[in-house]
Amino acid sequence: MNRLANESEMKWMPLLYGVTAGLSTLVVVFMLVWTFHFRGGFAWQDFPAIQFNWHPVLMVVSLIVLYGHGILVYRLLRNEPKKKLKLLHAIMMITALLLASVGLKAVFDSHNLAEPSIDNLYTLHSWVGLAAVICFALQWLFGFVAFLFPGVRHSLRSSYMPLHVFGGLMIFGLATTAALMGLLEKAIFSRVSYAPLTAEGILINSTGIAIASLSLLIVYIATRWQYKRQPLPEDELLLADQLAE
Amino acid sequence: MNRLANESEMKWMPLLYGVTAGLSTLVVVFMLVWTFHFRGGFAWQDFPAIQFNWHPVLMVVSLIVLYGHGILVYRLLRNEPKKKLKLLHAIMMITALLLASVGLKAVFDSHNLAEPSIDNLYTLHSWVGLAAVICFALQWLFGFVAFLFPGVRHSLRSSYMPLHVFGGLMIFGLATTAALMGLLEKAIFSRVSYAPLTAEGILINSTGIAIASLSLLIVYIATRWQYKRQPLPEDELLLADQLAE
Repeated sequence: MNRLANESEMKWMPLLYGVTAGLSTLVVVFMLVWTFHFRGGFAWQDFPAIQFNWHPVLMVVSLIVLYGHGILVYRLLRNEPKKKLKLLHAIMMITALLLASVGLKAVFDSHNLAEPSIDNLYTLHSWVGLAAVICFALQWLFGFVAFLFPGVRHSLRSSYMPLHVFGGLMIFGLATTAALMGLLEKAIFSRVSYAPLTAEGILINSTGIAIASLSLLIVYIATRWQYKRQPLPEDELLLADQLAE
Repeated sequence: MNRLANESEMKWMPLLYGVTAGLSTLVVVFMLVWTFHFRGGFAWQDFPAIQFNWHPVLMVVSLIVLYGHGILVYRLLRNEPKKKLKLLHAIMMITALLLASVGLKAVFDSHNLAEPSIDNLYTLHSWVGLAAVICFALQWLFGFVAFLFPGVRHSLRSSYMPLHVFGGLMIFGLATTAALMGLLEKAIFSRVSYAPLTAEGILINSTGIAIASLSLLIVYIATRWQYKRQPLPEDELLLADQLAE
């Protein structure tokens, strides 16, 4: 854990992050092609069936791409001061949470405003997805109180940290699972003649595989000790400040 | 990593494993109640639609319950010699792989022997699930060659170990995702009047939540440094043997 990475171990980081960035782009492009080419683009409450399309796009952009980058921020920008990184991490994560909330609004609206209206929250996708968003909101709140709220004891912060990291990765896993279940559900519900596979079916499945690969890569980068950010001299000052509080 | 767990840290292990064992039992009971009460029990090739039922039951028993316990074997039986644990781990995992293969045979048969026959491998569930089983087979093979085949250099073993551990956990995550997708897909395909929720729909969703909770708990126990097995004196002898080879 406290071994220092030498240069030869860090050398894979640009490649790993390059693939991460490429996969993130691919996932967003796949989602947009799907929405515009096959699903009629975007709308709000006047066209509930089209309003739905905001749901998959916003959930994937927020809970996979933005959340994933929020996890990696400490390792990607390892030479920035800790204080700045904590703030950036919190801002990226609250942005993800807000976008996800709009994504949830879109799906509830698309059900409630449809005629006849469609039931909410009955599929396993909706249970897992909602659990992921609720856990994420709690995780953000606990993280804010523990790490950004002034005056919290340093010992409390350090003892909560492993749980924050573990919880964050598990929520990411849950979000990935929910995303894949959502794609599957939509493919079946919208009867895209899933069997035999059409172009849309292949696009949906490929998007799922790209999302799973992206998540796996992000968890890999986030859990290798080689890529763990090492404290800078400024961070020690920050810590000294906290201890003096 | 090389901190030794003190007794107060180990004291949660019995509780954590107790919940793991309880959840494992619950998952198997849920799967059997679903199969017998709602899906017509078990059969083989004479009744392809019923033969299908082996698929969810065998996949969950093998890739979730047995695989999960195979992961934990080193931490649960920490006072057993390493040589014995390696063998037990390999045997549990190959058993899981064989049961999963029978589970795959059941689903292919249920499609191919149906009249009219049903297409194979077109849903995202099938893509993710098959990827999990193929990765698992490769993981077992690499693990066998690296850790049980005599004469492999100790340095090669230690450098492959982190990848084996990471790969194993990721395959477990993939299997969990595939299981939840499979439950969702079956609920929709078999038109159990999923909306509004019937008793069967609630059972299917609850099984999914139980599987997700079980996997999360297993990954938690498997990744906490406190619960990591510490080498015994006998293990050092084993290592010395290897170095002498």
